[in-house]
Amino acid sequence: MSRFKVAVVVGVGPGLGSAIAHKLKSENFAVGLIARNADQLTQIQSEIQAANGTALIFPADVTDAASIKDAFAQVKSQLDAPEVLVYNAGAFQMAGILELTPEQFENSWKVNCFGAFVAAQQVLPAMVEQGRGTILLTGATAALKGSASFSALAVGKFGLRALAQSLAREFGLQGIHVAHIVIDGMINTERVRGMASERKAHTLLSPEAMSDDKPLRVYAQNYWQLYNQDATAWTLELDLRPAVEKF
Amino acid sequence: MSRFKVAVVVGVGPGLGSAIAHKLKSENFAVGLIARNADQLTQIQSEIQAANGTALIFPADVTDAASIKDAFAQVKSQLDAPEVLVYNAGAFQMAGILELTPEQFENSWKVNCFGAFVAAQQVLPAMVEQGRGTILLTGATAALKGSASFSALAVGKFGLRALAQSLAREFGLQGIHVAHIVIDGMINTERVRGMASERKAHTLLSPEAMSDDKPLRVYAQNYWQLYNQDATAWTLELDLRPAVEKF
Amino acid sequence: MSRFKVAVVVGVGPGLGSAIAHKLKSENFAVGLIARNADQLTQIQSEIQAANGTALIFPADVTDAASIKDAFAQVKSQLDAPEVLVYNAGAFQMAGILELTPEQFENSWKVNCFGAFVAAQQVLPAMVEQGRGTILLTGATAALKGSASFSALAVGKFGLRALAQSLAREFGLQGIHVAHIVIDGMINTERVRGMASERKAHTLLSPEAMSDDKPLRVYAQNYWQLYNQDATAWTLELDLRPAVEKF
Amino acid sequence: MSRFKVAVVVGVGPGLGSAIAHKLKSENFAVGLIARNADQLTQIQSEIQAANGTALIFPADVTDAASIKDAFAQVKSQLDAPEVLVYNAGAFQMAGILELTPEQFENSWKVNCFGAFVAAQQVLPAMVEQGRGTILLTGATAALKGSASFSALAVGKFGLRALAQSLAREFGLQGIHVAHIVIDGMINTERVRGMASERKAHTLLSPEAMSDDKPLRVYAQNYWQLYNQDATAWTLELDLRPAVEKF
Repeated sequence: MSRFKVAVVVGVGPGLGSAIAHKLKSENFAVGLIARNADQLTQIQSEIQAANGTALIFPADVTDAASIKDAFAQVKSQLDAPEVLVYNAGAFQMAGILELTPEQFENSWKVNCFGAFVAAQQVLPAMVEQGRGTILLTGATAALKGSASFSALAVGKFGLRALAQSLAREFGLQGIHVAHIVIDGMINTERVRGMASERKAHTLLSPEAMSDDKPLRVYAQNYWQLYNQDATAWTLELDLRPAVEKF
Repeated sequence: MSRFKVAVVVGVGPGLGSAIAHKLKSENFAVGLIARNADQLTQIQSEIQAANGTALIFPADVTDAASIKDAFAQVKSQLDAPEVLVYNAGAFQMAGILELTPEQFENSWKVNCFGAFVAAQQVLPAMVEQGRGTILLTGATAALKGSASFSALAVGKFGLRALAQSLAREFGLQGIHVAHIVIDGMINTERVRGMASERKAHTLLSPEAMSDDKPLRVYAQNYWQLYNQDATAWTLELDLRPAVEKF
Repeated sequence: MSRFKVAVVVGVGPGLGSAIAHKLKSENFAVGLIARNADQLTQIQSEIQAANGTALIFPADVTDAASIKDAFAQVKSQLDAPEVLVYNAGAFQMAGILELTPEQFENSWKVNCFGAFVAAQQVLPAMVEQGRGTILLTGATAALKGSASFSALAVGKFGLRALAQSLAREFGLQGIHVAHIVIDGMINTERVRGMASERKAHTLLSPEAMSDDKPLRVYAQNYWQLYNQDATAWTLELDLRPAVEKF
Repeated sequence: MSRFKVAVVVGVGPGLGSAIAHKLKSENFAVGLIARNADQLTQIQSEIQAANGTALIFPADVTDAASIKDAFAQVKSQLDAPEVLVYNAGAFQMAGILELTPEQFENSWKVNCFGAFVAAQQVLPAMVEQGRGTILLTGATAALKGSASFSALAVGKFGLRALAQSLAREFGLQGIHVAHIVIDGMINTERVRGMASERKAHTLLSPEAMSDDKPLRVYAQNYWQLYNQDATAWTLELDLRPAVEKF
């Protein structure tokens, strides 16, 4: 039995997934990292270990149920049953309906939605037994609007939102908090910096905000607050967007 | 080249799909019928032929892109490129998240959403070339709300709604009308009859309304009106529910 | 007692309200016309009478409950209790939050929403007694999205949509059909003609479509179809937009 | 010039408004309290002063623009221009459409929506000048669904949500964060305690959670986190509901 609480982050690249993993480490979670790209996982694992954290990596393909199941089985045996699941895997291909192959369309849904379903199935039984647990699902504006050339993303993200609602309604009474985060706009620090010039000088983001990873840490902080919400007042859906975003 | 305009209905059982096929026949369409169950297709084909209509049947599996492509290739060669596509295939399994297998979850999405994507791909090129066409997608309340034990249906129907929006935004300017119909409540004549007793006597449905297929014909009539909408005022989303439905 | 069925249209200028009144006349309704501008009412009345229709006019201020009540009392005594109510009054002022006076903000809500509530109260008792009736409320895109500089309109139209839902849920079982129509984009024939050039030649609207009032007649036709919906399949919310509209 | 940052809470009774005022006090805000009931204001003021906080009270009628303007003018002269505005005023009357008077319907809208517009107008100019500010608006489930017998509340809360969106889109780029909080279910500690028995023993709320004001403090904490959100990731709409709430 681990001395640590365990969290799993699925979909960990150099962006939001990594920032969430670092945040969870800083809050004394042992973190299981699942993604397809083993090199990126190793990089993030090294960073967390260099900061005296515990991170184990489990390369897996979220479009493959068996691969997901295997990764979570290893999480359980090497760490412990997770109290927190963050599903952050995403795939985006901007393309018209006639430019997509059925395989691409299906694959996009599997990364954005199906993998979350299978991952949730792996963590829910222990969460139900414990009467507690948190499942955080990374959505997007495309969860609310099917734009032209966004069908593959929108179908996946609409589906993830439906899954979040069904999960919340089924497991809320059993003490499991499910939240769906609508990331509106790209968390692109270059872009945010560029747009910041539109704002009056005295409203400019602080110099610290100009560092590359500040926005990611801010987003991760919001995930952390969702985890910390008291059962008296849970949020199912949180939208997050830069002040400079048009919407 | 057919003397008739051609419509294809995907998902044709004894319910709404059949009623829509009959309506299209009565409006002088030659109808291509696609579904997995060849016996049901044969039955409906017989009815349409008995009424001097043209109906060809194409048994296919809507979860299999190749099977859909093959069916539409036959439609084109045996009838003509369709001016109307009705996607009415649906799969519903009421089950909690932990009771579903990943295969069932995936299959539900494929029937409710993926098949519509592949079917749309088969008819769009000719529609774009003609600068006209109508695609009608049968949704459900589960397209708007992920209820407990409805995750499989909701994920598919949310996805179908996303697809409808992306299709409409991509192809509207090219003359193709896409509409998503939210069927709220079951089109269950027994049930409607039962609930009718809640209403005051003088608001009761007419005796004709008591026949089994009246409600289905009414729903089919609404699909027909969507087809007939002038490009000056198209509807993207139409909800339909019995007056006696609680919602 | 009138030989005619009676409909009332509130908010009748030279646009959609007039087109709906003409459509109702052509379907043998006696039409009560309510608006603030008596000159416009007289003009439309003359047109309907010239076509052998029955139209009575009742100048009233929809922001004033007493004025609305008085107008409907006259409708009842001079025509009969209406079977159809169309609330088409609208006020739109594009202005930032700080540019609006509280009076303007309140007035916009009263025209867009409050007047519909009071008008509905006038027709509902007889509709409930008859066990039938239709209430059609003209909404807008601003019923779904509060854009910058659109607060006054959005607050009114969001409110009208809420009212439509509450009305439908309260009176549906009593045989009264309530529908909210989301007019997306302006029904501006100049604009539609201009945008039509974006479309391929063979998808251009017909020459008839180029006449000024075709779009209005098409919209009115959609209202008429809502009136005609069988209680087996009622629509609560219908969106209507030109094929050439970006959305 | 005040040494304190200033916040104003409009709609302060013994419930959420009071809890938010106490939270703001504990974070070193001087708090202006606006409500119609002077006795309740005095009570809360006494509590805050007993805890060495600064609270001034401004009895006002939120349905009266002049009264609101006067209260905010006093806030500015006696405290300072507010950096935070919380609009928490609400009026709820469960009644069918035909049971409400036009005056009640109008009054409900004024309390739930109009007062927020006027209050926002009072604080925005200084916020724009400062390039920062936070406006938090208390919504409800009725902001998303117009239920039977809820028309008066739904029209007001739909309107408030529209206002929130228009405010956010107009003032976000100027550094002002607007958020709309959807309170789902009643924050009723009796009720929450009652429902808690449905949950497994080990998921029961802590003894502390059983005290009367815990839920209110939790809700207030969520408002506080919205205030603290970095401009890199603002939330426009936050839903909050007890884990035990059916929805």
